[in-house]
Amino acid sequence: MKRIDINCDMGESFGAYTLGMDVKVIKHISSANIACGYHAGDPQVMDKTVKLAKEHGVAVGAHPGYPDLVGFGRRNMDCTPDEIRDFVIYQISALNGFCRLHGIKMQHVKPHGSLYNMSVGNEAQSRAIAEAIAAVDPSLIWVALGGAQTPMVKKIAAETKIRVAFEAFPDRTYDPDGKLTSRKRPGAVIEDPEKSAEQALRMAIDGEIIAVDGSRLKMEIHTLCLHGDNPAAVEHARTIRRALEAEGIAITPLAVLLP
Amino acid sequence: MKRIDINCDMGESFGAYTLGMDVKVIKHISSANIACGYHAGDPQVMDKTVKLAKEHGVAVGAHPGYPDLVGFGRRNMDCTPDEIRDFVIYQISALNGFCRLHGIKMQHVKPHGSLYNMSVGNEAQSRAIAEAIAAVDPSLIWVALGGAQTPMVKKIAAETKIRVAFEAFPDRTYDPDGKLTSRKRPGAVIEDPEKSAEQALRMAIDGEIIAVDGSRLKMEIHTLCLHGDNPAAVEHARTIRRALEAEGIAITPLAVLLP
Amino acid sequence: MKRIDINCDMGESFGAYTLGMDVKVIKHISSANIACGYHAGDPQVMDKTVKLAKEHGVAVGAHPGYPDLVGFGRRNMDCTPDEIRDFVIYQISALNGFCRLHGIKMQHVKPHGSLYNMSVGNEAQSRAIAEAIAAVDPSLIWVALGGAQTPMVKKIAAETKIRVAFEAFPDRTYDPDGKLTSRKRPGAVIEDPEKSAEQALRMAIDGEIIAVDGSRLKMEIHTLCLHGDNPAAVEHARTIRRALEAEGIAITPLAVLLP
Amino acid sequence: MKRIDINCDMGESFGAYTLGMDVKVIKHISSANIACGYHAGDPQVMDKTVKLAKEHGVAVGAHPGYPDLVGFGRRNMDCTPDEIRDFVIYQISALNGFCRLHGIKMQHVKPHGSLYNMSVGNEAQSRAIAEAIAAVDPSLIWVALGGAQTPMVKKIAAETKIRVAFEAFPDRTYDPDGKLTSRKRPGAVIEDPEKSAEQALRMAIDGEIIAVDGSRLKMEIHTLCLHGDNPAAVEHARTIRRALEAEGIAITPLAVLLP
Repeated sequence: MKRIDINCDMGESFGAYTLGMDVKVIKHISSANIACGYHAGDPQVMDKTVKLAKEHGVAVGAHPGYPDLVGFGRRNMDCTPDEIRDFVIYQISALNGFCRLHGIKMQHVKPHGSLYNMSVGNEAQSRAIAEAIAAVDPSLIWVALGGAQTPMVKKIAAETKIRVAFEAFPDRTYDPDGKLTSRKRPGAVIEDPEKSAEQALRMAIDGEIIAVDGSRLKMEIHTLCLHGDNPAAVEHARTIRRALEAEGIAITPLAVLLP
Repeated sequence: MKRIDINCDMGESFGAYTLGMDVKVIKHISSANIACGYHAGDPQVMDKTVKLAKEHGVAVGAHPGYPDLVGFGRRNMDCTPDEIRDFVIYQISALNGFCRLHGIKMQHVKPHGSLYNMSVGNEAQSRAIAEAIAAVDPSLIWVALGGAQTPMVKKIAAETKIRVAFEAFPDRTYDPDGKLTSRKRPGAVIEDPEKSAEQALRMAIDGEIIAVDGSRLKMEIHTLCLHGDNPAAVEHARTIRRALEAEGIAITPLAVLLP
Repeated sequence: MKRIDINCDMGESFGAYTLGMDVKVIKHISSANIACGYHAGDPQVMDKTVKLAKEHGVAVGAHPGYPDLVGFGRRNMDCTPDEIRDFVIYQISALNGFCRLHGIKMQHVKPHGSLYNMSVGNEAQSRAIAEAIAAVDPSLIWVALGGAQTPMVKKIAAETKIRVAFEAFPDRTYDPDGKLTSRKRPGAVIEDPEKSAEQALRMAIDGEIIAVDGSRLKMEIHTLCLHGDNPAAVEHARTIRRALEAEGIAITPLAVLLP
Repeated sequence: MKRIDINCDMGESFGAYTLGMDVKVIKHISSANIACGYHAGDPQVMDKTVKLAKEHGVAVGAHPGYPDLVGFGRRNMDCTPDEIRDFVIYQISALNGFCRLHGIKMQHVKPHGSLYNMSVGNEAQSRAIAEAIAAVDPSLIWVALGGAQTPMVKKIAAETKIRVAFEAFPDRTYDPDGKLTSRKRPGAVIEDPEKSAEQALRMAIDGEIIAVDGSRLKMEIHTLCLHGDNPAAVEHARTIRRALEAEGIAITPLAVLLP
C-alpha cells in the first residue's frame, strides 16, 4: 500500500494577530510545521498549536525561521552558518518544551521561508541546519526540498546521522532540472485544485513530476506541502487529500513512513 | 562537612553588546544562571556561555525573564499566570538545546529580575513558574528566594513534584520578617566585601541571618547569589568564596547538594 | 449647529498580519489614531494608513503604546515618567514622518491600551504624555478620557501649553463617579448599536451621560471613540454616525472643533 | 581657509547595554550620527545623545539602520526600496522628536552598516534613502560614500532636491577604482594613528587619496568618518583632529560647510 505524508505550516499567529486557518486545515494533514517565535508564533500560540495537533493525531515539527518578525522570515538575511545553527537550535528546543508540556514527541524540523529557500543547494547553510537538528535530538527528521539537491542533502544527513524526508509541492510547477519554477514566472503556482490533485497523485504513486517542458522527472518524495492560510488553500488541501485517499494512498506521518 | 552552592547571573550579553565579566566570575561560582533571550542573551551568547560553564565545571541553569529587552526584564509587567508559564517553558527549553549541544544536563531554573521579584510571595505566579519547570523536566531544581515565602514555595514544589533550592543574598540586608530590605533604603546593599563574607559565613554555617534590627532569623539556604557585572562585584565574589573555603565549606552545585 | 469628532484606532496591522477593517470604518470617522510601531503598526502600515486617512479627509493622530508587540500594548508595564515621555516622543515623531511624506499636518495624539488606561487619573504619567506632545509640536491636540480626571488633565494641558480634547465611549457604561464601568462587570460593554447610538446622541447634544445607577453626569466631550476591529464594530460605527447626522450633528475633526 | 567636517557614530547603547565612548569622542568631532532604535539606540539613549551633542556644539544627524538589533544592522537584508524608504522615514523622524525636545535642528542623515554598504553604487536603494530624507525635511544633508559612486549620488540628490556630503575614511585604504579595500584584505584597516592622520590631511587639503597601488585619486570629500567604540579609536580620533588643526584646517559641521 502506497503511503505519503502531508505537511502544512501552522501556528503562525502572534499576540493579537491571527494568521492561518489552523483549525480547518489540520483535518487534512499528517504533519504540522509549527512556527517558533522568530518569524511568527509566540509561546501561547505554540502551546495551543501543539495541543491542537495532538488532539487531531497530527505529528508536530518545528518550523524555525529568520529573526525577522516584521518580514515574516521571507527576506533573505546574510547570516553565518554558526548563527543559523544557533538560532535553529534555539527555536527547535523552544518548541520542544511545548511538546513535553503536552506529552508528545517532536517528529521533524522544516525551515521556514527564506531560511528554507537560501539553504536549497547551499551546503554550508544546509549543514548548519542539520547540525542544529542533530544537536537537539538526532531522532528528529529533517524535511528538505526534493529534486536537484537530493544527493547533497543525503550526504549531509548521513554525516550528521539524522534522517531526511524530501518534500514536493503539488501546487507548484517544476523546471526540467527538478527545481521549482520561479514564482515570478506566470503559472508557477497552480491555482486549480484538480490540477494540483493530479500532480499530487503522480508524486505519491509514481514519485514522478512532469516538468514545464513536458519531461518526466523521477523524484524521491516523502511529504507533500499544502497550505492553510486562506479558505481557498483549505479547499485545495481538502481536494488533494480526498484524491489521494480515493486512490488508496494512506496519509501517514513521516515518523511512521521513514525507516 | 558543610556545603553550599554559589550562583551568579551570566550570559547577559546580546549581539554587539557585552555585559558582565563572565570569564572572571565563573571561577568563583558553582551554578550559572544563563539568560535565555528575552531580557538578555541571544542564541550565540547562550551557546558560548553554556560552553564556558561546562569548561569550568559549573552547573548550568536557565534564567528566564520578561519579554522586555530594552528594560532588561527589570520592569514589572502585568502578565497572566498562563502567559508566564508559557514564556518560561519557551526560555528554559531554548537554553536546553545548548545544553544538549554541549552534552550537559541542565541543573536549575532561576527567574530573572521582575519576574523573580513579582513572584515572591505570589502563589499564582510562583505556581506558573513551577509548572513550567515541571513540564520541561521535573528533575530541574527551582531556585527561589528563601525566607518569608519558604512554606508557600515548598507547598507548590511538592504539588508540582519538583525540587526547590532557597537562595540568600550575602550583599543584601534583611528585614525582621525575613524579606530583603528595599533597595530604596540606604545601606540595603552591602558594599564592603568583608561584611558580605561575614554574612555569607553565617548563612552557610548556621543558616542564620541577622536582620537590620539585630534579631536573628533562621533560614533554609542552599545557594548564595553573587554578582559579576563589574570589577568590584567580581572582587566581592572572590572574597566571599575565599572566606567560605577558609572555613572548610565546600562550594557544591545544587544537584549534588539537594537530595 | 452641534459638532463632534469621531475617532477610531487604525493602522494596527503588522508585517504579514492584518488587523482591523480600516478601509471600511474610515468612512464613518473624522479622526484616525494610527499605531506607531510599538504595540502595533510598522513603517509600511503607517505609510499606507496615513495615505488612506488623507484620501478620506480624515485627520491623522498618533496612537503611541507600550513597547510590547506580543501583548499588543494591553499589559501594564511599570515604566518611569521619563521612559514614557521618551517613547511617546519617539512614536509621535515617527508617525510625523509619514504625515510629511503625504503632505498633511498631524492633528492629535491619543495613547493606546494600557498606556492610556494607566495614565487616567495619574498625574505623573499624564504629564509625561503631555510633555512629549508639547516637545514634538505644541499645536498637537492631546486626546484624554473625559469625566473624573478632567480637572487634572486641564491643569497639565495648561502648564504644558497644549490643547486637550476629551473623549467618551458610546459603547461603554459609566459609573456614578464618571469613570468607565470595569469591563469585568457584565454589561459594561454595550452590544446593541441602537443603545450606543442613543448614548452617543446624549453625549453629543447634551454633554451628558446616564450612569449605571440612573444618575445624570455632565461631561465635557469633544470626541467619541468607535471601533473597527470586526464587522459588528463597523456596523456599530455606521449606526452611530448615521444617528448623529440624522440629528443634524456635524462630524468634525478636532482641529476644527477646538478653539 | 580649508575646512572639513568630522563625523562619528554615536548613541549606540541600548537599555542596560553601553556601547561606545560617546562622552570622550564627542570632543573631537563636528557631526554626530545618532542611532535611531533599529540596529541600536532606544528613546532614552537618543534623548541623552542629542543632549550631549547639543552641549558640545556638535551637529546632530540620524543614523538609520536595518531592523536587526541582534545583528547590529551589519547583516545584509533583502529589503525592497519601498521598505527601505519607509523605515528610513520612520527612524529619521523619530530622532527628529528629540531634536525638537532639545531645541536644535537636525543636520544630516547617514545610513548605518549594511544599509550604508548595500546602497553604495545601488541606484534603487540610494534613491529610497534620498526620497526618505527629502520627504522628512529637504534641508537635511545626505551623507554618502565618496569616490566611485559620486556621479550617481549627485544625480539622485539633484532629482530629490537634497544636498549631499561625501565622506572618506582616514583609517581605511582605497582600491585604484576609488572603492574601499575589502576588510578581508590584510591592511585594509589602518591601525597606526599617524598614518591615518597623514591620509586625513591629504583628504582634507588636497581632496586626494593614494590608492593601494600608489595611484593618486581625486575625490570630493566633505566629511571624515572617525570612530569612538574603544579607547584606541578615541586616541585615533584625537590624533587626527590635532593633525588637521595643526595644519590650520577648521573642523566645521556640514551645514556650515555646504552651500
